[in-house]
Amino acid sequence: MIIILKQTAKQEDIAALRGALEGSGLSIHDSKGTETHILGLIGDTSCVDVNALLANDAVEDVKRVSEGYKKANRKFHPEDTVVNIGGHKIGGGHFAVIAGPCSVESEEQIISVARDVKESGAGLLRGGAFKPRTSPYAFQGMRAEGLELLRKAREATGMPIVTEIMNTEHIPMFSDVDVIQVGARNMQNFELLKELGKLKNPILLKRGLSATIEEWLMSAEYIMSEGNENVILCERGIRTFETSMRNTLDISAVPMLKAKTHLPVVVDPSHAAGLSWMVEPLAMAAIAAGADGLMIEVHNDPAHAKSDGAQSLTPAAFDALMKKAVPALSFFGKTLN
Amino acid sequence: MIIILKQTAKQEDIAALRGALEGSGLSIHDSKGTETHILGLIGDTSCVDVNALLANDAVEDVKRVSEGYKKANRKFHPEDTVVNIGGHKIGGGHFAVIAGPCSVESEEQIISVARDVKESGAGLLRGGAFKPRTSPYAFQGMRAEGLELLRKAREATGMPIVTEIMNTEHIPMFSDVDVIQVGARNMQNFELLKELGKLKNPILLKRGLSATIEEWLMSAEYIMSEGNENVILCERGIRTFETSMRNTLDISAVPMLKAKTHLPVVVDPSHAAGLSWMVEPLAMAAIAAGADGLMIEVHNDPAHAKSDGAQSLTPAAFDALMKKAVPALSFFGKTLN
Amino acid sequence: MIIILKQTAKQEDIAALRGALEGSGLSIHDSKGTETHILGLIGDTSCVDVNALLANDAVEDVKRVSEGYKKANRKFHPEDTVVNIGGHKIGGGHFAVIAGPCSVESEEQIISVARDVKESGAGLLRGGAFKPRTSPYAFQGMRAEGLELLRKAREATGMPIVTEIMNTEHIPMFSDVDVIQVGARNMQNFELLKELGKLKNPILLKRGLSATIEEWLMSAEYIMSEGNENVILCERGIRTFETSMRNTLDISAVPMLKAKTHLPVVVDPSHAAGLSWMVEPLAMAAIAAGADGLMIEVHNDPAHAKSDGAQSLTPAAFDALMKKAVPALSFFGKTLN
Amino acid sequence: MIIILKQTAKQEDIAALRGALEGSGLSIHDSKGTETHILGLIGDTSCVDVNALLANDAVEDVKRVSEGYKKANRKFHPEDTVVNIGGHKIGGGHFAVIAGPCSVESEEQIISVARDVKESGAGLLRGGAFKPRTSPYAFQGMRAEGLELLRKAREATGMPIVTEIMNTEHIPMFSDVDVIQVGARNMQNFELLKELGKLKNPILLKRGLSATIEEWLMSAEYIMSEGNENVILCERGIRTFETSMRNTLDISAVPMLKAKTHLPVVVDPSHAAGLSWMVEPLAMAAIAAGADGLMIEVHNDPAHAKSDGAQSLTPAAFDALMKKAVPALSFFGKTLN
Repeated sequence: MIIILKQTAKQEDIAALRGALEGSGLSIHDSKGTETHILGLIGDTSCVDVNALLANDAVEDVKRVSEGYKKANRKFHPEDTVVNIGGHKIGGGHFAVIAGPCSVESEEQIISVARDVKESGAGLLRGGAFKPRTSPYAFQGMRAEGLELLRKAREATGMPIVTEIMNTEHIPMFSDVDVIQVGARNMQNFELLKELGKLKNPILLKRGLSATIEEWLMSAEYIMSEGNENVILCERGIRTFETSMRNTLDISAVPMLKAKTHLPVVVDPSHAAGLSWMVEPLAMAAIAAGADGLMIEVHNDPAHAKSDGAQSLTPAAFDALMKKAVPALSFFGKTLN
Repeated sequence: MIIILKQTAKQEDIAALRGALEGSGLSIHDSKGTETHILGLIGDTSCVDVNALLANDAVEDVKRVSEGYKKANRKFHPEDTVVNIGGHKIGGGHFAVIAGPCSVESEEQIISVARDVKESGAGLLRGGAFKPRTSPYAFQGMRAEGLELLRKAREATGMPIVTEIMNTEHIPMFSDVDVIQVGARNMQNFELLKELGKLKNPILLKRGLSATIEEWLMSAEYIMSEGNENVILCERGIRTFETSMRNTLDISAVPMLKAKTHLPVVVDPSHAAGLSWMVEPLAMAAIAAGADGLMIEVHNDPAHAKSDGAQSLTPAAFDALMKKAVPALSFFGKTLN
Repeated sequence: MIIILKQTAKQEDIAALRGALEGSGLSIHDSKGTETHILGLIGDTSCVDVNALLANDAVEDVKRVSEGYKKANRKFHPEDTVVNIGGHKIGGGHFAVIAGPCSVESEEQIISVARDVKESGAGLLRGGAFKPRTSPYAFQGMRAEGLELLRKAREATGMPIVTEIMNTEHIPMFSDVDVIQVGARNMQNFELLKELGKLKNPILLKRGLSATIEEWLMSAEYIMSEGNENVILCERGIRTFETSMRNTLDISAVPMLKAKTHLPVVVDPSHAAGLSWMVEPLAMAAIAAGADGLMIEVHNDPAHAKSDGAQSLTPAAFDALMKKAVPALSFFGKTLN
Repeated sequence: MIIILKQTAKQEDIAALRGALEGSGLSIHDSKGTETHILGLIGDTSCVDVNALLANDAVEDVKRVSEGYKKANRKFHPEDTVVNIGGHKIGGGHFAVIAGPCSVESEEQIISVARDVKESGAGLLRGGAFKPRTSPYAFQGMRAEGLELLRKAREATGMPIVTEIMNTEHIPMFSDVDVIQVGARNMQNFELLKELGKLKNPILLKRGLSATIEEWLMSAEYIMSEGNENVILCERGIRTFETSMRNTLDISAVPMLKAKTHLPVVVDPSHAAGLSWMVEPLAMAAIAAGADGLMIEVHNDPAHAKSDGAQSLTPAAFDALMKKAVPALSFFGKTLN
């Protein structure tokens, strides 16, 4: 960590600051130039509060030079993490396809979609039971009943299930969920993250709408610091000024995450664009950029879906997509499972 | 609501769509031009799912022409809502100043800051007990004990207290909190919003980091639709590309909200800029733009604050600010209380 | 175009507005509902000024339902445009690789890089002679002399040259440049676009840092409306809140552009990420998403480059990239030339 | 400037880097910690190319700790710059109001608006002759004829004129323009900035749509480094994700600029919001935040304006605004002239 002192800083204030920092076990390199005076802190600065330093009268600016996350950091864990979900692996060259409807709507619907996507090659079944909707007047999901129907679909097909949790109070209901999803709007619901950190279930952590990659990894760190290291990151588009698409898929996040962390990275092209016809090219781009998995919305009847119909593929369209994805995975050296 | 049909839409698909819409009680105006074919829906369209329409093969685009929020909408409630917090009013010409430390740190600290800010003219005391922090390794707040200390400060000074809730499970602990704050990161924690809607306590709803004004009002609607109409909106800066400040204060949100909703609007210049020296000019701008209140961080010793020191005013700096704010309020026709 | 009238609009104001619109040759469909009153305009609305309508007392909002661009619009020109640059085609299945240094620095440098990238499979040579730099104290390019060196490199290798123009006064110097590039910062330099529209040289139009896709196509329309239809679009990353990369590559822009326009689309992964190690995965993503070309910075000695060294590949790294790009192009059905 | 070395950096690479830096006249403080190894550069680093450093194999990251602008920097020029335009001063406590139509449309129009705004208290007349429009099919301004009409309005009223230049080739036509405006879309048209730097006319430099404050000041530096120090900065709203307004007024830019630079700062609330009813509260906020001037669009007949009608005030509305602005200026300690 580097502290840039004000040109007008008083000697006694600088001395007091140095004393306090040294008192907390850090050593200091002092670089005084003609225009700038800098203190370089040597040691473990994860305990140092940047904000408190910025409030010091002698300080002009503070810059971190090491990351705030440890357990998620590839520097301290160079090997890829491979998350194993009932035999389906994600990470380290293993690629997983998670598919299913935005919302669970009925037993018939979820089982039929599950059978279709499995047939096309998907390994895991997604389906929303608890739905975060912008409007209180929109369909809020089938909730506990939806979870029950997902279990039936799992039983019918053998596919592990992936579904979103919205509140710590629902955790008991999710105990046998194969992958618990944290949605974009809850990426910084820290109370939820901490409780999920106490479980063993793999957690799929979606990126917040305007979360930096650093903040996203800090949220992964919340889960991991409590003991649950089975975290899967899911890029689902960020909010920008562009209005022709629902969100802007940050494809660069894939290689950047692969460099910064050992955790697997999944891409959700359905939410990214919000348009079904754009799912295929974005899915191909995700594979080419090095993603470890895809999460794709598939609905038996998109025009009558209770949520997100515009971005849902029909089973036939998903099948067509998989027919292109499978050779592409092989081309880019990934194993589908 | 307006449906723009594709140039290539088939007659039978259009007929089916019209039938479905008319079946749900809407009437339709059909405008067919040389380049565009449009259906205008007449009636209550709050039940219509835009996304499902977009998934229809015949549809190119859909545009809402009326807002999705009803209870928060000034069109249906032209009079300003005035929220009364133990005699302190916000809205309808009444201006409230909420001040106090980012985090409650000790009994002595919170009581001393409370006395100071009350003396300078603040009406309500803020203080964080549960703290949402980007890093799991940062101070997470005194939690239940912090709430207890806030009650002691209320007892000592008579000031109503404003403090943040992060989880539905904590609601029982917050039953006597005068104003329950929902932080920016929880603005779309819909489970929390729904539960807060069942209480009587006024709710201060901060804007999400990248929430549009429409989404923010939809979150207010979540609370109001459950029965709690005492919602105060708090602009605290949005996330943009600019890096010289923590966030970008969206001052235009103040007049835009005053036009769209009857709810009171408070501005938090401390979080907006993240820099204590910028609090005063932004506070003045908020008053001038028509805000109904200010929320300002004040700490007895910013350089040793456990959170957000860089943006905290000292009690002396807050007193100096209030000496300018009071005549400014009078100049702009507001009553401080 | 749709005009949403205010609830409070007066009958006489509405009548006057209708009269004015009908007077300009449009016909009107009037849809009056319980909550909204809408006028749908039928006819060519490209002459209607949205802003003037918004200034009308009776008008609440105006929504365009057809695009503002005609010549760039795929609706009126369904076939892909193929731009032919000295035998190198871009568009319609033909893929072009443009490579070379950010700045031309010497005759030896540009000729040696040109030979290297040609050997690796690049079809066109890029190199900056006029350089737009954020700081007036940074290297501004070799200017006219740089153009001269590019011509020598063309002569030595037979590669067509691509280089950026910054000012209308320089147009005579660019008369024999094979592809004239308009940089991101000049995407809305309308005087420049109009003059380039009078030439025959193909124009490579980079997307502005925060330009919407609609605005970008309107800038292409500026060039095309003057008669020059040889426009190539280049996505080079947009400005967002994310700070770990120089820009955020908007990969979704590729399929969106392919849907909206017939013009070829090139991706510049070098400027998008600003980091050389990220060029390869982003280049692969661009191919997979359906781009018609790549523009890549290659420098003989990046650590001593006079500009953009951090994002430049060495010739060896570019060669390694091309060894992967060539089979990927074949896999995705494109022809390199 | 601070260089963060890679953990894997080789000794010989570090030695070579140090040698090169010392060879260019810098001295180096070396701070080697357990996790990080940092080189602090002491001396004038404005000549150091950050990008070239980033391309060095031994370097992980580089952080600037001093600003890239010198002439615009308040550190080296603590006194406020006061720009004098025919007796109307801006800066150092002097406040200027610039008003007039978006576009000059006729002699009668510009003279009548000029008389109206002068009567209401405006000191300078604005009016666009050359208009940057998103669409090539929109009104492009009266161009040279518009400049002629502005001169007539100046003659008729004695008001100095402010008008936008779009191209270096037009500079001779602008020789007697009192304040030459550079629009947002040309903020990084560096060839134009350099030529304007050779003139004596004051330059009003608008902020680019997504320009950081640092980039904006670097563009001011372009003008100043050529010798013209009469630069006025104009905040006109930035591009964000919010869609209810045309742009987001960055009110924080006012105090931030006052801290970083000595140049005067003007706010344009008309372009910021794009809505006439929002001009007044934003103008008041600008005064309260410490701006040195306002730039406001006033049109005799907004509903028939050839550009930007939606954001234009009528002369009567402008007069009402000035009746509030004048006492507000006095309240905030500014002198209108």
